[in-house]
Amino acid sequence: MIREVQDKVCEAIEIADGGGRFKEDAWTRPGGGGGISRVLQDGGVWEKAGVNISVVYGVMPPEAYRAATASAAGEKSGPVPFFAAGISSVLHPKNPFAPTLHFNYRYFETDVAADAPGAPRKWWFGGGTDLTPAYVFEEDVKHFHQVQKNACDKFDPMFYPKFKKWCDDYFCIKHRGERRGLGGIFFDDVNEYDQEMLLYFATECANSVIPAYIPIIEKRKNMPFTEKHKAWQQLRRGRYVEFNLVYDRGTTFGLKTGGRIESILVSLPLTARWEYDHHPEVGSEEWKLLDACINPREWV
Amino acid sequence: MIREVQDKVCEAIEIADGGGRFKEDAWTRPGGGGGISRVLQDGGVWEKAGVNISVVYGVMPPEAYRAATASAAGEKSGPVPFFAAGISSVLHPKNPFAPTLHFNYRYFETDVAADAPGAPRKWWFGGGTDLTPAYVFEEDVKHFHQVQKNACDKFDPMFYPKFKKWCDDYFCIKHRGERRGLGGIFFDDVNEYDQEMLLYFATECANSVIPAYIPIIEKRKNMPFTEKHKAWQQLRRGRYVEFNLVYDRGTTFGLKTGGRIESILVSLPLTARWEYDHHPEVGSEEWKLLDACINPREWV
Repeated sequence: MIREVQDKVCEAIEIADGGGRFKEDAWTRPGGGGGISRVLQDGGVWEKAGVNISVVYGVMPPEAYRAATASAAGEKSGPVPFFAAGISSVLHPKNPFAPTLHFNYRYFETDVAADAPGAPRKWWFGGGTDLTPAYVFEEDVKHFHQVQKNACDKFDPMFYPKFKKWCDDYFCIKHRGERRGLGGIFFDDVNEYDQEMLLYFATECANSVIPAYIPIIEKRKNMPFTEKHKAWQQLRRGRYVEFNLVYDRGTTFGLKTGGRIESILVSLPLTARWEYDHHPEVGSEEWKLLDACINPREWV
Repeated sequence: MIREVQDKVCEAIEIADGGGRFKEDAWTRPGGGGGISRVLQDGGVWEKAGVNISVVYGVMPPEAYRAATASAAGEKSGPVPFFAAGISSVLHPKNPFAPTLHFNYRYFETDVAADAPGAPRKWWFGGGTDLTPAYVFEEDVKHFHQVQKNACDKFDPMFYPKFKKWCDDYFCIKHRGERRGLGGIFFDDVNEYDQEMLLYFATECANSVIPAYIPIIEKRKNMPFTEKHKAWQQLRRGRYVEFNLVYDRGTTFGLKTGGRIESILVSLPLTARWEYDHHPEVGSEEWKLLDACINPREWV
């Protein structure tokens, strides 16, 4: 599944980019497993696009285990044997009107007995797809959320509302009181369903990436923009870096388990900016984006 | 002390900058205390220069306490009453041959009894001054370290070797196996000396910032450079962001205690860059800097 999605997404990105080509690196993890990283840098449309898959296993230190699971029951004192397989992607376009997309779908297993008192569950799925624009085009955000909802509704009508809220809660830059972007879906530690059914669900979500994202890129990739638009995009990219390095569970997990650093940090934008005490003018287009990041909305 | 140093350093920076002026913000912390932030942005020489002082007190959550002290004995289950006063500064120049400087001197007190078994010490000093160039000019690094050593030697000949090594160990980007820069001095949890003596020591170190740094800036601020030099500086700025957001104790402490976000994150550069899997050519000037960050040297 993850290899198929990697191939399809990379193909769609190369076509829309109209010039850039992915560079592939295969790597192995000393403790067990490995992955395939594909990165397109400085293309026609994308500044940096990474689509990585990995299958890793071995033993992880307790702090990595705590980073890997959202569960409060996930407190363990010793090393934990584990298996993890997933696809992870971040796509940062150049045009400030074209949004950044992130998606990640992963499966986890640990050898911790599921029936021990207070023990965490033995396997779980996690993942999500979310959109991070620098400017709000309502039709784009609605389209994006509608595609996520359609994928969810095939399985359980409770999935979209639950995972949409989880996304808003998860991608929160707590020290700013802002979300990283305009959300989508996010879930973790999910195992209350049949394992095969959850694999189909993750596959459906992953297959929804192209129809959710590429039509937005086609509309925005050639829109004219000014230096001011670019500077605002760069400030939002700074927020992206803040979230990923301070809060993101995948990044934290990767840095702590000795993952391949270049594959983990390919999620960071090519360029970012931090201005001291910057506040967009109330009512401006920049302010509208910030407002939607501070006060998450229902888009569908 | 911290107000005097703030005034003197800002004055020296404005003179060397030859055009930029510091903007001052005074702020108060809802839980107790406050500070004065001074920031010079987009000046003649500096891209971003922040010189902040703060005096904060109140009660901090246990995770913030753990972030504030290096001591393994600093494990506490409940909230901890505290008092902290300090000066903190990061100076990022524009010219890629002119190094970034960071310094921070701080005094901490907590109400945790020093004589309780396993309890942390009741007061301590911390701080340091360190240099982060994008290119190595040996004479600059030697001069910088010599001034740090001179300040240390006035108090204890063991200080410089001990605090130089502590600096190399502390400013380590663990996931890269690289130091952020070329070091200087760093110390924390220091209370094995007379309190007044340590205040004089911190004052001496803080007063050494101008003679250690400004002569280097004067030599480098107008050196001609190319796009290639600038891009390498930007990549090293990315490493600076990685260290500060993932490892820096002051940043972590500030974000967790609800400090003033803009004052904490003024340490981040105006712009930064992340290229996938970038490796400078062996033997190049860029490689020499990276090598010195991977293998810390004795400069004096």
